Amino acid sequence: MSTVGKTITCKAAVAWESGVPLSIEDIEVLPPRAHEVRIQIYYTGVCHTDAYTLSGKDPEGAFPIVLGHEGAGIVESVGEGVENVKVGDHVVALYTPECKECKFCKSGKTNLCGKIRATQGKGVMPDGTSRFRCKGKDLLHFMGTSTFSQYTVVADISVVAITPEAKMDRTCLLGCGITTGYGAAVVTAGVEKGSSVAVFGAGCVGLSVIQGAIKCGASRIIVVDVNEKKKEWAMKFGATDFVNPADYGDRPIQEVLIEMTDGGLDYTFDCTGVVSVMRAALEACHKGWGQSIIIGVAAAGQEISTRPFQLVTGRVWKGCAFGGIKGRTQLPDLVDDYMTGKLKVDEFITHRENLNNINTAFDQMKAGDCIRCVVDMQNLA
Amino acid sequence: MSTVGKTITCKAAVAWESGVPLSIEDIEVLPPRAHEVRIQIYYTGVCHTDAYTLSGKDPEGAFPIVLGHEGAGIVESVGEGVENVKVGDHVVALYTPECKECKFCKSGKTNLCGKIRATQGKGVMPDGTSRFRCKGKDLLHFMGTSTFSQYTVVADISVVAITPEAKMDRTCLLGCGITTGYGAAVVTAGVEKGSSVAVFGAGCVGLSVIQGAIKCGASRIIVVDVNEKKKEWAMKFGATDFVNPADYGDRPIQEVLIEMTDGGLDYTFDCTGVVSVMRAALEACHKGWGQSIIIGVAAAGQEISTRPFQLVTGRVWKGCAFGGIKGRTQLPDLVDDYMTGKLKVDEFITHRENLNNINTAFDQMKAGDCIRCVVDMQNLA
Repeated sequence: MSTVGKTITCKAAVAWESGVPLSIEDIEVLPPRAHEVRIQIYYTGVCHTDAYTLSGKDPEGAFPIVLGHEGAGIVESVGEGVENVKVGDHVVALYTPECKECKFCKSGKTNLCGKIRATQGKGVMPDGTSRFRCKGKDLLHFMGTSTFSQYTVVADISVVAITPEAKMDRTCLLGCGITTGYGAAVVTAGVEKGSSVAVFGAGCVGLSVIQGAIKCGASRIIVVDVNEKKKEWAMKFGATDFVNPADYGDRPIQEVLIEMTDGGLDYTFDCTGVVSVMRAALEACHKGWGQSIIIGVAAAGQEISTRPFQLVTGRVWKGCAFGGIKGRTQLPDLVDDYMTGKLKVDEFITHRENLNNINTAFDQMKAGDCIRCVVDMQNLA
Repeated sequence: MSTVGKTITCKAAVAWESGVPLSIEDIEVLPPRAHEVRIQIYYTGVCHTDAYTLSGKDPEGAFPIVLGHEGAGIVESVGEGVENVKVGDHVVALYTPECKECKFCKSGKTNLCGKIRATQGKGVMPDGTSRFRCKGKDLLHFMGTSTFSQYTVVADISVVAITPEAKMDRTCLLGCGITTGYGAAVVTAGVEKGSSVAVFGAGCVGLSVIQGAIKCGASRIIVVDVNEKKKEWAMKFGATDFVNPADYGDRPIQEVLIEMTDGGLDYTFDCTGVVSVMRAALEACHKGWGQSIIIGVAAAGQEISTRPFQLVTGRVWKGCAFGGIKGRTQLPDLVDDYMTGKLKVDEFITHRENLNNINTAFDQMKAGDCIRCVVDMQNLA
């Protein structure tokens, strides 16, 4: 019996309030309205941003909410006027939408899209309302995606169709971490052949920066992480050096790196979200041209700082969201790269859980030996 | 009688110690050694950097020293191996040298040159010694130029020959302020046609940023200055708007600018050296692509800061010295632009003094109605 046009009742992991584990609930998912798409989510990754919002440290975090922003699934139905995807399409949800019409999309200079920014930030659909209900209450949407539900509704500009030949337990990871790191190196930094790169933090994003740097022909890739276990991971992904700041006592790590590289790095990437690391990453750049890219999301209220002399002498400080990748335009190419063996994805999956055990996935992420845990949303066994 | 190969005794303004006015003295200027050039300085500008070092606030400032770094003159003699200039050439001294051989010069990415950086920073010639003596003491060199002397000795990579048809009381200003602002817009930022620009601080550098922005085809140029008298100057140089932050009370000026420009500026320039202004300049940039360029030199120990979110959402923070201009390669073109009426220089000169009254030039600079005071080094009347 078709579900099109009807409210669907399904399982979802609901965050009722901050600091409390997610609760598996039966929720109602309303049909998509004009320019909206309802997706059956098959797999979702769990990312630090979900944990950050759940922790209550994000001052803009509101509850109750359906978290999750790294998901893949199949289009169940579409609202009026939807032209970019159709029922049955395999898709990835995009927390960075792409309308192709706004000042941002047309600028040719950024992947940020302004069209639904205000409502997405408030946790509602573009018309200002929610498509999720549970126990008589509306639930908020998260990052325009809310992939911790068996069904979700997103704006049509927040979804991209990809080849059905790619397995969804892999493509979900292109919805955030892998794309973010890869794009930061390839698109935002535009790493050049023969250049030197330092990657601070060897989690999912950092390891994917390595992939991007290799794609661009970087000749030296130094990974910096305080977790010694990450050395093996870094080397597996193609790093040439691993530096553990703990081995250098109180010595500023930027000094160590500048010495190692005869003056500093051509490109550095912060994948930690720690503002003191962001500073070290900038200051490890080579005078005259080194660029440092901030990828990690810092805790609320935290600020970065440095001496202006660092910039006056030619270092550049920049950043990006979703790696500077335009989801609808560029993500299908990344999936193709994965299918043809040019982009590692399988290697990132260290843990698997089903929806019922999604809180375990959060615990694993914090434990430090997890790169990515993929959650099977349809299997509740 | 030729002075070649002999020590020359001439007048110079000597800074014996910090916080004390310059003293006009007879000093001995030794002949140039290998790869050095002795220049008879005809005119010099007085710049905030000279005042900063004289004030004693620069922790690296050492005394006694011959200050000055914005000078034009004629080559009196050259040491062995000098090939880029010859006796009689009209030249501008370059505090940012260009050796064309070091890692920096060959990178194609920066105008900073590494060849004599260490000795220049210590106030000595590349061989580690001084060419200035007074009352039995060695005097230090300043920024590799020391233009507050009737004769100075510089490294051959720190000087560029220009057309003798350009008046030296004008070309001296291309040795720092004008070139710095113009280059920041044209070279470092690469302002694009139709873009919006904000310039913080309408002194010599800021007014020249306007020139560069106009050259690049900027459609809107907003000048921000707390000195209302600068409005007329800004408009004279081609600004489209003038904003005095004092008119907005406690309201952050970045908010005002973002509102004025429907989202922020494409390019902003700090020409103040004040770290809170640098922050405002960055945060006034348009999300997604706005670039802020730090030109001003901050006081020792001061730091810039902002929320990393500003960069993650696409703003870029950079800076430059000498506008990113390569002195030997590019300065002659700027002089030609001046000669053909494409670059304003005459308009910057608001005051004139002779060497005997150089301390008056410092007072004028601080008074706020002075853009540049040109000092006649040969006329002691």
